[in-house]
Amino acid sequence: MKLTILGCYAATPRTITNPTSQVLEIKNRLFLIDCGEGTQVQLRKNKIKFSKINHIFISHLHGDHLYGLIGTVSTFSLLGRTTDLHIYGPKGIKELILLQLKLTESWTTYSLFFHELESKESEIIFEDKKVVVKTIPLKHRVYTNGYLFTEKPDERKLNVEAVERHNIHVAYYQKIKNGGDITLDDGTVIENEKLTFDPIPPKSYAFCSDTVYNENIIPIIENVDVLYHESTFLESEAILAEKTLHSTAKEAATIALKANAKQLVLGHYSTRYEGIDPFKEEAETVFPNVLLGDDGVSFEF
Amino acid sequence: MKLTILGCYAATPRTITNPTSQVLEIKNRLFLIDCGEGTQVQLRKNKIKFSKINHIFISHLHGDHLYGLIGTVSTFSLLGRTTDLHIYGPKGIKELILLQLKLTESWTTYSLFFHELESKESEIIFEDKKVVVKTIPLKHRVYTNGYLFTEKPDERKLNVEAVERHNIHVAYYQKIKNGGDITLDDGTVIENEKLTFDPIPPKSYAFCSDTVYNENIIPIIENVDVLYHESTFLESEAILAEKTLHSTAKEAATIALKANAKQLVLGHYSTRYEGIDPFKEEAETVFPNVLLGDDGVSFEF
Repeated sequence: MKLTILGCYAATPRTITNPTSQVLEIKNRLFLIDCGEGTQVQLRKNKIKFSKINHIFISHLHGDHLYGLIGTVSTFSLLGRTTDLHIYGPKGIKELILLQLKLTESWTTYSLFFHELESKESEIIFEDKKVVVKTIPLKHRVYTNGYLFTEKPDERKLNVEAVERHNIHVAYYQKIKNGGDITLDDGTVIENEKLTFDPIPPKSYAFCSDTVYNENIIPIIENVDVLYHESTFLESEAILAEKTLHSTAKEAATIALKANAKQLVLGHYSTRYEGIDPFKEEAETVFPNVLLGDDGVSFEF
Repeated sequence: MKLTILGCYAATPRTITNPTSQVLEIKNRLFLIDCGEGTQVQLRKNKIKFSKINHIFISHLHGDHLYGLIGTVSTFSLLGRTTDLHIYGPKGIKELILLQLKLTESWTTYSLFFHELESKESEIIFEDKKVVVKTIPLKHRVYTNGYLFTEKPDERKLNVEAVERHNIHVAYYQKIKNGGDITLDDGTVIENEKLTFDPIPPKSYAFCSDTVYNENIIPIIENVDVLYHESTFLESEAILAEKTLHSTAKEAATIALKANAKQLVLGHYSTRYEGIDPFKEEAETVFPNVLLGDDGVSFEF
């Protein structure tokens, strides 16, 4: 699982910082999460293949998470894309993109599918053989969802030496990998754990931005491997955080702790601060495993 | 008169090139012309004060001339702007910006005025004491206008030595600066040209992008000081230029020649070419005074 932060600063794009966008690579799928202005250039800078992105998840319709979407959708067309593209986001996103395409008097070279979200409850919005994506309802000034990406468990790994020792026919291998026991011709039952090894445990990633401190999300993201939680402010601006429905670094860390996350990644920093190290320091007073998100940084988990 | 090219490459923004946007400083007014994705960052890079821009002119609703507008409008708000902002562009631009603001559930901190254009004839769309702006109807795949910015003539400069020699009272100075002759007490008429110097001749700038080669614009831009004319292609791609309703460098130069422009600035280069020097070379076979527009380049005229 690899997370590439294309941008993780709040509000306006600047010469040195980019608004929110990130790419999650999970089970060989590339998911684009949020799409602030300049995302397509950040994708190029980070050498991410446009053609590998088939699903885009937009948390909410504030500009710093959205205004790069139409440019990305248009550029995919200019590059002659033919593969379907799926866009998940709040109701209204379809009208907006379609109006822009209509005014351009053009259409995409590929099929564009919108999955508009309205529910205030967590729901599964994407599922294939290897990955499930659920919404994480967040509390912000407009309707906002985070997204939880979870790998499905792999099948068990065959213990080739054990299987051959028991002369088990290849026809039974899939049954074994699915977790089944085997009865030999003499009636002996060989338990599955003697014929297999544990698979690599499935991983999970939760993207939570933008949101005020909200313990309601804890049951949804419990035990997540990696939690990206917005930290627009430091505790010195806690009142401002509450007023604007954002979080502080300490609050992000508190959610990570209470949700039993393994790793916290911070981001969505207000550009009022000179540097971002104080965010890590503040979060570490509550939770030990803190990584600082930053534009162009990748993490492998 | 100063022209700053923020971006002048066709189609998609890339890591090293920007889509169309430029700032014209004329008579101490700053006009923003077109607004491709990333314009607000280019404004910052070029140290142009956001607060000095009160008028934005959009040529057409293709993304590479438009997709930075909503971000720019939003950032002006985030910076607490209170001065009116006027946006000129094709019909549809108001609906698009208002829909985006509605979805954001926010409004601008300043008054936003839309001047939607539909006419296929050249028309005056802005006029104040010092500058007039007219549309230049262009031929492209969607409804498109170029813009002609013309300084109004300054009043004549007082020849202080002459005025004092004739003992002319200060009450008559404005009449003289307006071009009037003076009758002295003894009945002698002093002609205006003996009391004044010529003012600095008014300058003009024509922005023509995007368009196919179109001689209909020549009467509108005749004798212009500076003509920015798109040159998406070289003559080797002349057929493609005609098909996509764009121009070649040679065609841009031909328009400059026939319109008796003093200076031609090229831009809107297709990103298919390795470098832009061949555009200048090709244009110079037809017209001598060619400047290569490029991102971040400023010209003073």
